[in-house]
Amino acid sequence: MPPALNIVPFVSVDHMMRLVLAVGIERFLTELAGFIEEDFRRWSAFDKTPRIASHSPDGVIELMPTSDGTTYGFKYVNGHPKNVRAGRQTVAAFGVLADVGNGYPMLLTEMTILTALRTAATSALAGKYLAPPGARTMALIGNGAQAEFQALAFRALVGVDRLRLYDIDPAATEKCVRNLAGLGFDLRRCASVAAAVEGAEIVTTVTADRQNATILTDNLVGAGLHINGVGGDCPGKTELHPDVLLRCAIFVEYAPQSRIEGEIQQLPPDHPVTELWEVITGRAPGRRDAGQTTLFDSVGFAVEDFSALRYVREKLRTHPFYADLDLLADPDEPRDLFGMLLRAGAGPGRD
Amino acid sequence: MPPALNIVPFVSVDHMMRLVLAVGIERFLTELAGFIEEDFRRWSAFDKTPRIASHSPDGVIELMPTSDGTTYGFKYVNGHPKNVRAGRQTVAAFGVLADVGNGYPMLLTEMTILTALRTAATSALAGKYLAPPGARTMALIGNGAQAEFQALAFRALVGVDRLRLYDIDPAATEKCVRNLAGLGFDLRRCASVAAAVEGAEIVTTVTADRQNATILTDNLVGAGLHINGVGGDCPGKTELHPDVLLRCAIFVEYAPQSRIEGEIQQLPPDHPVTELWEVITGRAPGRRDAGQTTLFDSVGFAVEDFSALRYVREKLRTHPFYADLDLLADPDEPRDLFGMLLRAGAGPGRD
Repeated sequence: MPPALNIVPFVSVDHMMRLVLAVGIERFLTELAGFIEEDFRRWSAFDKTPRIASHSPDGVIELMPTSDGTTYGFKYVNGHPKNVRAGRQTVAAFGVLADVGNGYPMLLTEMTILTALRTAATSALAGKYLAPPGARTMALIGNGAQAEFQALAFRALVGVDRLRLYDIDPAATEKCVRNLAGLGFDLRRCASVAAAVEGAEIVTTVTADRQNATILTDNLVGAGLHINGVGGDCPGKTELHPDVLLRCAIFVEYAPQSRIEGEIQQLPPDHPVTELWEVITGRAPGRRDAGQTTLFDSVGFAVEDFSALRYVREKLRTHPFYADLDLLADPDEPRDLFGMLLRAGAGPGRD
Repeated sequence: MPPALNIVPFVSVDHMMRLVLAVGIERFLTELAGFIEEDFRRWSAFDKTPRIASHSPDGVIELMPTSDGTTYGFKYVNGHPKNVRAGRQTVAAFGVLADVGNGYPMLLTEMTILTALRTAATSALAGKYLAPPGARTMALIGNGAQAEFQALAFRALVGVDRLRLYDIDPAATEKCVRNLAGLGFDLRRCASVAAAVEGAEIVTTVTADRQNATILTDNLVGAGLHINGVGGDCPGKTELHPDVLLRCAIFVEYAPQSRIEGEIQQLPPDHPVTELWEVITGRAPGRRDAGQTTLFDSVGFAVEDFSALRYVREKLRTHPFYADLDLLADPDEPRDLFGMLLRAGAGPGRD
C-alpha cells in the first residue's frame, strides 16, 4: 500500500506529556542531550539562519528555521511576559520537521514542553563539559516553569543532587520544592541569591525579568564556579552584572545570535567567546582548571530545536503517541488540484 | 466557562475542500479577493519581511511571515518541481494566524488549496484594475494545477467567459477542459501559444518551467493586451521575453521581492514598476488607455496569505469546518509546566 502522502504525524500536548512520561523524564533529557551533542558535533552541516522575529509592544513572535541539508526544521515560538497575568504561558511553541528532498512536512509537534526539555538538556550538556568535575550542588535562581527541568537535566547529565533554591516569589520556590520532593534531591529553600549561591559549584539563573537585571553581582561569584545563565535571552534582558562576565570564560551556542540576545550583549562585540560545539569536538578547550569561572550564556538556538524534533520523531517509532493530520493536499494526479476539489463535492457523504 | 487556551482550530485539506464547496468556489474567490484588496489598501500597516528561503538542489522550503500589528500570519511552503514524478504536489503549504498581543496561534490550516485560490484571486484582482474594460477572452497558457482557479477567478471578478487553452502537454489541456466543462465557459483547445493568444484580451501564463523559458515572445503580444504572468516566480524561473517586458506597463505586488523572483529579474534594478496597492488606493494610475500593454508580474506575497488566513478564520464563524487541535500547553498555573507534566502521569487513564 502506498504511504498516505497527505498525512503528517501530529504530537499534541497530551501526546508529548505521555511520551515524556513513557520514556521517563531523566532518560528523555539524557537521550535528547545526546541528540543535541550529536548535532553540535556536525555543526558545519547546519544552515545557521538568524531567527526571524516580529516584535510588538507586548512581545515577540519568532520563526527559527535550520537545515542539515537532508532534514529541515523550524520552530514557531512567542515571548510575551504579560501572558502569565491572563493564565497563558510566557512562551508557547510548536515545530515542524520536513524532508529537504521533497519539502513535505513529516512531523508537527507541540514544542512548549519540548522547548523546556531541550533548554534544560542543552544547559546540562554544557555543564557536563564546563562544570567543575564532581560538582553536586547547584543554586537554582528563579523557580519558574524552567526550574525543575534544569534540576533533572543536571542530575541526569552532571550528577547534581543538591539544590539551593531561590525566587523573588516564595510561592514559586514552594511550587518547585513540591514538584521535586520525593525525586531524591537534597532541597534547600534559600532567603536570598547570596544564600543560594553559598557552597554551590554550579549557579543556574533562570529568572523571567524583562529589563536588564542584576541577579548575580561580582561579589557573589567565587572562583571556580560554573554559571549557567538561561534567563537572559533577548535584547534588553540580562541577568548578570558585566563585571561577572569579565571574570568568566564565556561559552555560547552561536556567537552572532548570542551577541544580540545573550548576556554578552553587554560586552564589546569583539569580546572573546567560545562556541559550545568547539568544546564538544575538542577544537577549543572547555574548563582549564579548578580556579577558572565558566559561564554558559544560553539563549536557545535553532539547532537544538532541530535535535529535539529529530529525537521526538525517532521516539515515535516505538512510542506511537501521535495522531494523523490531514495537512497536505494529495490529488490522484498532482496537476489536478481543482478536480480533487470538485470531486470532494460529488463524493460519498462525509462528516 | 473560560476559553480553552490550549486549543487551536485546525482546517484539514478535507475541511478546506468542504468549506470552499459550501461557500461556492466563485464566491470564495470573490470574497477572498475582497479581503486581499482590503489589506492592500492598508499596505503600510504590514511588516514586509522578505520570505526566508532554505534552498537545496531539489527545491526550496520557505517561511513567509507578516503582521499588521494586531494579527500575525505565516505560511510554510515548498517548491519542488520533481515532486510530480513521485505523485506529490510541486507546492504544498500550510499556515498559521496568531494574536500579536499574546503570541498564541489562533488558526492552523492547510494552504495548498488555499494558496491556489489566493493566487488566482490576486491575479483577478489585478485584472480588475488593469485588464481592458469589458475583456471577455483570456488565453490560458499552462493548464496545470493553477489553471482552473485562474479561469474561475477571472470570470468572477473580471467577467471572462471565453478561454483559449494551451499546454505543452495536451493531457493537461484535456484535464482542464474536463474540469471546466459545464461551468458556462466557451472553451477552445489551441495548438500553440500563438493560436491561444489570438483574439485574447488577457493572457495568463502559468507554466511550471524551471529554467528561464520564453512562453511569450514580443511578436505574440499585441498592443492593449493585459498579461497576467503567474508562472515566473523564483530566481531563474521566468516566462516572458525581456522585449515583452520593455513594452509593458509593469505592476507587481512588492517590488523588492519581485525584482528577485519575478519576470523583472530580467530587467535593470531601477526599471520603473508600480505596486498594485498603489493602483488600488489611487496613488498611481492603472491602465492608461486601450493601446497600453499591461503586465501583472505575480510572484505571491505574504500579505495575500495573511488575507487568505484572515478570510478563512472569518468563514469558520458560520462554516465550522475545523477540528480542535491540542497544540498549546495550558497548565493551571503558567509557571508550573513541570507539575502539569507530572500530574499527567497521575491522572485518570487516558488512551
